Amino acid sequence: MAKTIFIETLQEGDRIDELFLVKSARLAETRAGKPYLILTVMDKSGELTGPVWDNAERFQELCQPGECIRVKGMVQSYREKLQLKVDEVTPVAKEETDMADFLPATIHSRTEMAAELQKIISTVTNPFIRKLLGRFFKKGEIWDRFQDAPAAKGIHHAYVGGLLEHTLSMARVADMLSGHYEGVDRSLLIAGALLHDLGKIEELYMENGLIDYTARGRLKGHLVIGSEMVGKVAAQIADFPEELLEQLQHLILSHHGRQEYGSPTVPMTVEAFLLNYIDELDSKMNVLEQLRRKLNSTEMSWSDYQRSLERYLYLNALQDEKTEAGRKEEGLTVRQQTLF
Amino acid sequence: MAKTIFIETLQEGDRIDELFLVKSARLAETRAGKPYLILTVMDKSGELTGPVWDNAERFQELCQPGECIRVKGMVQSYREKLQLKVDEVTPVAKEETDMADFLPATIHSRTEMAAELQKIISTVTNPFIRKLLGRFFKKGEIWDRFQDAPAAKGIHHAYVGGLLEHTLSMARVADMLSGHYEGVDRSLLIAGALLHDLGKIEELYMENGLIDYTARGRLKGHLVIGSEMVGKVAAQIADFPEELLEQLQHLILSHHGRQEYGSPTVPMTVEAFLLNYIDELDSKMNVLEQLRRKLNSTEMSWSDYQRSLERYLYLNALQDEKTEAGRKEEGLTVRQQTLF
Amino acid sequence: MAKTIFIETLQEGDRIDELFLVKSARLAETRAGKPYLILTVMDKSGELTGPVWDNAERFQELCQPGECIRVKGMVQSYREKLQLKVDEVTPVAKEETDMADFLPATIHSRTEMAAELQKIISTVTNPFIRKLLGRFFKKGEIWDRFQDAPAAKGIHHAYVGGLLEHTLSMARVADMLSGHYEGVDRSLLIAGALLHDLGKIEELYMENGLIDYTARGRLKGHLVIGSEMVGKVAAQIADFPEELLEQLQHLILSHHGRQEYGSPTVPMTVEAFLLNYIDELDSKMNVLEQLRRKLNSTEMSWSDYQRSLERYLYLNALQDEKTEAGRKEEGLTVRQQTLF
Amino acid sequence: MAKTIFIETLQEGDRIDELFLVKSARLAETRAGKPYLILTVMDKSGELTGPVWDNAERFQELCQPGECIRVKGMVQSYREKLQLKVDEVTPVAKEETDMADFLPATIHSRTEMAAELQKIISTVTNPFIRKLLGRFFKKGEIWDRFQDAPAAKGIHHAYVGGLLEHTLSMARVADMLSGHYEGVDRSLLIAGALLHDLGKIEELYMENGLIDYTARGRLKGHLVIGSEMVGKVAAQIADFPEELLEQLQHLILSHHGRQEYGSPTVPMTVEAFLLNYIDELDSKMNVLEQLRRKLNSTEMSWSDYQRSLERYLYLNALQDEKTEAGRKEEGLTVRQQTLF
Amino acid sequence: MAKTIFIETLQEGDRIDELFLVKSARLAETRAGKPYLILTVMDKSGELTGPVWDNAERFQELCQPGECIRVKGMVQSYREKLQLKVDEVTPVAKEETDMADFLPATIHSRTEMAAELQKIISTVTNPFIRKLLGRFFKKGEIWDRFQDAPAAKGIHHAYVGGLLEHTLSMARVADMLSGHYEGVDRSLLIAGALLHDLGKIEELYMENGLIDYTARGRLKGHLVIGSEMVGKVAAQIADFPEELLEQLQHLILSHHGRQEYGSPTVPMTVEAFLLNYIDELDSKMNVLEQLRRKLNSTEMSWSDYQRSLERYLYLNALQDEKTEAGRKEEGLTVRQQTLF
Amino acid sequence: MAKTIFIETLQEGDRIDELFLVKSARLAETRAGKPYLILTVMDKSGELTGPVWDNAERFQELCQPGECIRVKGMVQSYREKLQLKVDEVTPVAKEETDMADFLPATIHSRTEMAAELQKIISTVTNPFIRKLLGRFFKKGEIWDRFQDAPAAKGIHHAYVGGLLEHTLSMARVADMLSGHYEGVDRSLLIAGALLHDLGKIEELYMENGLIDYTARGRLKGHLVIGSEMVGKVAAQIADFPEELLEQLQHLILSHHGRQEYGSPTVPMTVEAFLLNYIDELDSKMNVLEQLRRKLNSTEMSWSDYQRSLERYLYLNALQDEKTEAGRKEEGLTVRQQTLF
Repeated sequence: MAKTIFIETLQEGDRIDELFLVKSARLAETRAGKPYLILTVMDKSGELTGPVWDNAERFQELCQPGECIRVKGMVQSYREKLQLKVDEVTPVAKEETDMADFLPATIHSRTEMAAELQKIISTVTNPFIRKLLGRFFKKGEIWDRFQDAPAAKGIHHAYVGGLLEHTLSMARVADMLSGHYEGVDRSLLIAGALLHDLGKIEELYMENGLIDYTARGRLKGHLVIGSEMVGKVAAQIADFPEELLEQLQHLILSHHGRQEYGSPTVPMTVEAFLLNYIDELDSKMNVLEQLRRKLNSTEMSWSDYQRSLERYLYLNALQDEKTEAGRKEEGLTVRQQTLF
Repeated sequence: MAKTIFIETLQEGDRIDELFLVKSARLAETRAGKPYLILTVMDKSGELTGPVWDNAERFQELCQPGECIRVKGMVQSYREKLQLKVDEVTPVAKEETDMADFLPATIHSRTEMAAELQKIISTVTNPFIRKLLGRFFKKGEIWDRFQDAPAAKGIHHAYVGGLLEHTLSMARVADMLSGHYEGVDRSLLIAGALLHDLGKIEELYMENGLIDYTARGRLKGHLVIGSEMVGKVAAQIADFPEELLEQLQHLILSHHGRQEYGSPTVPMTVEAFLLNYIDELDSKMNVLEQLRRKLNSTEMSWSDYQRSLERYLYLNALQDEKTEAGRKEEGLTVRQQTLF
Repeated sequence: MAKTIFIETLQEGDRIDELFLVKSARLAETRAGKPYLILTVMDKSGELTGPVWDNAERFQELCQPGECIRVKGMVQSYREKLQLKVDEVTPVAKEETDMADFLPATIHSRTEMAAELQKIISTVTNPFIRKLLGRFFKKGEIWDRFQDAPAAKGIHHAYVGGLLEHTLSMARVADMLSGHYEGVDRSLLIAGALLHDLGKIEELYMENGLIDYTARGRLKGHLVIGSEMVGKVAAQIADFPEELLEQLQHLILSHHGRQEYGSPTVPMTVEAFLLNYIDELDSKMNVLEQLRRKLNSTEMSWSDYQRSLERYLYLNALQDEKTEAGRKEEGLTVRQQTLF
Repeated sequence: MAKTIFIETLQEGDRIDELFLVKSARLAETRAGKPYLILTVMDKSGELTGPVWDNAERFQELCQPGECIRVKGMVQSYREKLQLKVDEVTPVAKEETDMADFLPATIHSRTEMAAELQKIISTVTNPFIRKLLGRFFKKGEIWDRFQDAPAAKGIHHAYVGGLLEHTLSMARVADMLSGHYEGVDRSLLIAGALLHDLGKIEELYMENGLIDYTARGRLKGHLVIGSEMVGKVAAQIADFPEELLEQLQHLILSHHGRQEYGSPTVPMTVEAFLLNYIDELDSKMNVLEQLRRKLNSTEMSWSDYQRSLERYLYLNALQDEKTEAGRKEEGLTVRQQTLF
Repeated sequence: MAKTIFIETLQEGDRIDELFLVKSARLAETRAGKPYLILTVMDKSGELTGPVWDNAERFQELCQPGECIRVKGMVQSYREKLQLKVDEVTPVAKEETDMADFLPATIHSRTEMAAELQKIISTVTNPFIRKLLGRFFKKGEIWDRFQDAPAAKGIHHAYVGGLLEHTLSMARVADMLSGHYEGVDRSLLIAGALLHDLGKIEELYMENGLIDYTARGRLKGHLVIGSEMVGKVAAQIADFPEELLEQLQHLILSHHGRQEYGSPTVPMTVEAFLLNYIDELDSKMNVLEQLRRKLNSTEMSWSDYQRSLERYLYLNALQDEKTEAGRKEEGLTVRQQTLF
Repeated sequence: MAKTIFIETLQEGDRIDELFLVKSARLAETRAGKPYLILTVMDKSGELTGPVWDNAERFQELCQPGECIRVKGMVQSYREKLQLKVDEVTPVAKEETDMADFLPATIHSRTEMAAELQKIISTVTNPFIRKLLGRFFKKGEIWDRFQDAPAAKGIHHAYVGGLLEHTLSMARVADMLSGHYEGVDRSLLIAGALLHDLGKIEELYMENGLIDYTARGRLKGHLVIGSEMVGKVAAQIADFPEELLEQLQHLILSHHGRQEYGSPTVPMTVEAFLLNYIDELDSKMNVLEQLRRKLNSTEMSWSDYQRSLERYLYLNALQDEKTEAGRKEEGLTVRQQTLF
């Protein structure tokens, strides 16, 4: 059964019979002592919560977080917010579904981004670096995880494919700036852009729609993990120059720019300075883009207070924007050509 | 009399008869009680100091800081550094000289940079902004001063034409990034790049090879001065939209990125975030470039401790670099095409 | 209909028929599915919230935020807090009411404070400064708004007339200290005190009892706005000395004392140092005064944790204090003579 | 023998026969191997250094730091600075001199300041506080040392009588502000002003013109020492209210305003807030006053970079200022009446 | 009536008739308008909340915070948390109970810790210090309060006996390290460890299970209070060397290590450095220990975000741990021998 | 030829014929134009500088930094400091000398410290950790370099053998504290202590008496280098548990305690907290010890201002101390037994 209706398009009064992912389900009790279930479901476009008044215990068993379910019910309004009144829940095998329907994901085609990234690698002139990049970004477990991984837990690019999107965007900017500034080692800078967050595929994991840290991720951090991954693969390439490796690892280790942001060493080479700025730039631009995608009006208006940025923002909607659910069908590639 | 020999090419034993600018001259006294003059002269390639043993008082009168002088003498070595043994000093009228020979200056052609900047202005689509930019960057006092001004007192682009070089480089990067990121108002961002340091032509002045702050510059700062200048000119353009002006002034006022760096407000719009990053990026790249131009070897090596950056740097020389004095004659424009 | 009873004097069991300002009104729903209205009303002495069980939708239309309404109902106690049980709501035309009854306001007479301020201006000896002050503080839009404006959004003097009260108090202290310390330019310091927060009349607006920032206010900040306002008016006064203007603008721009507090330049003149201290002093004293006005006991006791000050405070009530509602009738002027 | 000529009035070519205090004297050696003495002498108006070519070893014995000497010699110019060519040195017994001639000191009459301070104490209404103040500021060792002590080692009021000057100035401001702000406990605030730096008479000592810290001063700090002194004296006053003492000690302990400035607790009472501001204000005003006393021109000009303030200052000379040496004879009391 | 069952051992369905301490009791009202009581009771092992549906007003009178009550009722589960359904409440005289049953307390025997501490004092070789320590840690009010006091309000050792536990643990570490590092004055360091938090017995008070600050504690801080206490007692010991006292007071005043953490002076002696590190070390180890005591599994797992430490922690349960209630009976001394 | 006299024992007038290490030698020129050599020599006890008046150029060739030379000459006093008047310089083959005579070094026997460290390893109970430690601290290049390496460039333990001394001291403290605090994994903590600075053998190098950073050291930092080294060796040990390795690497990576001090992750385990405190403690105690070894008096006195600690220190000499040169002969082992 394919998913056809997405949460962000639902309106009060809609009757539904649709697939969702269970985010959480917990038992509560009415004043009268009768148990009921408070169920939260999600798909890639948002979340919806609502009560299941009958058969609470039985449904709770079906509704394990991360499971796919088929829900029959109705969309109601409660305290000016939509809620889902659930009449019936049926389990659905994950194999029959496309997880991309349920998890928030990049709006760009991962296939096309991957191809673009391969094309950039082919332009790297330093043969050792090109070989090294080839080892990571070719068929295999790392490359598979790389394409699915989010780029962060909760700030920027925090969705399926976010790491790929962020990495590719940075590589494009790195390409531009290595043409603009004299004397930049383009091979090193491109490699830095492509590998700087590599460690995130071991630092973060995504389960049932939630991104969280692995123990290794917290204990070592993605900078050190990424540096180690690069060190191990370089050791398998004959005659990989030691200093080239050290400069590359320096790019990864220093890309947060300051020790207080978690970099054990600060940028000390031209490429390390550039990489740090490109990373900050691209991360912030994604935060702003995510906020703008939720706006309706092309008029400038003030956002809520953004705690992570410690300020209010003055923004308008991205102008040619469509609903996210509809975007897919109409072919994303056209607009994308202008982005990448 | 044209200047033909520059300080950076002098070697021990050279006999000279050449023009210089006086940087400083102060009287000292030998143990035996005889007065002598410690004279420091400069040209665009560097400085040289040395004693004038005879006629100290008479020569001191000629050697006012900022005056042009013709010096006959010899280059000697003293404690492993070169010094100038002065035999004769003659005054030279400033009109007979080209000040560009004496002051450190951008290595790029200011004429070509100015033309490039004009071309960028012509691509700005918002008519109000294009008109506003035209008022500043056309024949007149502001435009004249803009082309000569340094971009800072002592950190980055601290030389004649530095403001123009920094401004143009930022406009080029702004152009690239407004093409890369979706939904950026290119007109605003280009204007922000071109006007962000405009106030520096009133904040700084250059006299006799020394850059310093004006009283107004210290009391108000170039961010506020620039914002005021833009406000005044916009008031002369019919129907200039008030909010457009506020956003433009916000770009100028917030471009240092943080209050502790002197911005009265922090970036709150997409363009303000970008402008702040482009400014930091371009300033730092110039600092690194200046350091690299002083290096000889293409091998990576460690710089002295850089107090302003609080770190050591790992750098090599810009590879196809020539001596600065020789660069001019050979036609700078070729390499420049790759930079801008 | 004149307002006679104020919220801070209400007690459990009171039956009321009184005018209030609507602060907010939102629909909720009982378990049984019946809609009701949660209404919050305010007057200058405080706020009160309560349910409107019947005709929720109809009353919601009347109860737009900022509207005046006449409420019949009863004061009840719910979870140890007073709430308002509303029986009937009737719309009231704003023209029939005195807004000063509804908004929190200075406890001092604005007329008398304005007169006092005029008297201080008349003692300023520098003719240019006296003329400049006259332009701002005379009949006209700026002067009108100045007398109503709050001095801040939520920390100190955050009420109608707060800007006038804060400004006058600072001018009085500036007067004292310019007599105490040798070599202070009294004209400049008084002008700095009177104009330092002038930009707030464009930075903040007050609507329906809520103070918020304008777009211009957030994008430029009241320091820059105030400096611009002064610059524009000075440009209209013949021969206004340029350096005098720069020093005056420096006072405004630097009065927050540190860049991290939003001043683009730090105090560099004797008057700028004094102004910064006087501003901090007067703001903090108002914060403490507001807290003390809410206390009952003349015994010292500990306040709640004050997040904005990051500490607990040890305070007692202002001793000869009366309830605020009663204060007006009895003639405020007596006590005021001791304050100003 | 009375001192008649002061260092700040000396000019090149003056022949002198005058008393000075030895600041330092160290042996050096000419190239030819002959020992000579580099002697630095001081009086209250400044310092002067110069060589003693002959009898170096013998004169060194006479010239112990802190000793008074009679010097015959000549004022010369060396590298554009004045130096003292010493021909003869004779020892002088300290009893025959007035130490006030040699140490930098307040320009105000200590006798008058002491009388003024007594008058202020007599206006304190709280009997316990008045009694406590009386114990400190009456004939005795503490009162004697208080009148001589400097207020700091090197920042503000760093001269004989500086503590008295700073304390009195603060008490005057405290008096003004306790009249201006409603509900201030004037007795407490005046006491806080008078006692806040009391601990400095044990924290600092002045010897031979140099101010330095005592071991106790460094190990405990003048805040804690002062609080202890007050605690001990209060314990000797019958029925001194415990809470009154705690509030008073709180004023002393918190008067640096922030923990990072050395206050173990931050201001938590109205009086503690005021005292902290008054202290910062008065200290900074003295720093500026000292700088202005060294200027000649009434035109505003830029100071050197002030490291302790992290900025340049824009200052002019205090206008009716005279040379310090001459001031005394002409009767200081006239101008003083305007200061205090 | 002795307490036999502790809150941490209760399970759903348990019927109870047991003693508790009232933590809070507040009246609420059902939708139907009937008042009921929300009662929170505590014992040393935890807290439990629940409704008292009947006789709310009557029971509220009995249930004053800090009173002992006997409760008959049942343990229920509500929203997956246990709650207490109260059927009957009877007052209990405090004299009939052992307060140690109700307040969270050190798990170590206070008697044994006190003995251990006495033994350490007997090893102090400096006679003045040993005498001084004897004055504090002997029968008397201070020693009584010392053994009961918590060591902090809410971070570490925040329970009855916590001050004694923390003090003893630090003395043991001080003993070890003074043996390890050459040239440490063991007497001073041991005294510093024993007296560093002495002021807390006046800074904090414990009432009805709640720890809070006294007015003196907030106004002066425990560092200054402790230093004063030591100063007073030393003054009663004949010939107590002044410098020894100053060093000891320095240890107390500087033991927070930095001014921004509330120390008026920073560590300047060998012993002061050591004491500061030992204090930080021991405090943090207690925080971790408290967290580990609440864990069940010996597997490492991630804690919730610890706001006070600004991080997540990776911890396992303390392995040989038993329920706290049961621990007492089985004789704490065995395990304790390994701890102390 | 064996070295018998050490620089710290030299006195004015001594005639010498002794071996030294050349630290630097640079040519200067007398006023008369004659070149002379300014030579600085060192041995483990200090440095001495002096002129070589004759044959300057020839001697300069012999005196390359890092070379051993035999010097005949005399100790003179110049400007109250000792200097060396060199009469003759002869080259000496390094093989004929013992480098330990020339470089500042630990005062403890490296052989004994190494044995002590081996003994501690043998007490580690976790077999994987014991095996891992065995790989590093056994015959081989790493172990050789470890015993010679300094522990820092310029702050603490900055001498030959400093890393071994610091590591062993920390292991001893780790041993003590793992016995004191319940539930510490002793094997992990001991391993953390032994390996925490392992990366320093690649981060720093010592050449001719100067400690400096390697390129790798600056680019990656010793925390990351050490973590990598441990990772590589663990990979060679069959079945080394992955989580054990991660915890061990976490200890190394987090041991600076804060990100701003260069740790990419902060301590999150019990052992990581302890290790960080032990490292800070031991480093500071060494700084104090070095200062105390230079003092003569057992009286407490104030040090110069210590920039790295931002304070003055109150210290006395280590009491039973002897001159360093003489210490060796008398058998260091006795006192050492009490230290380790």
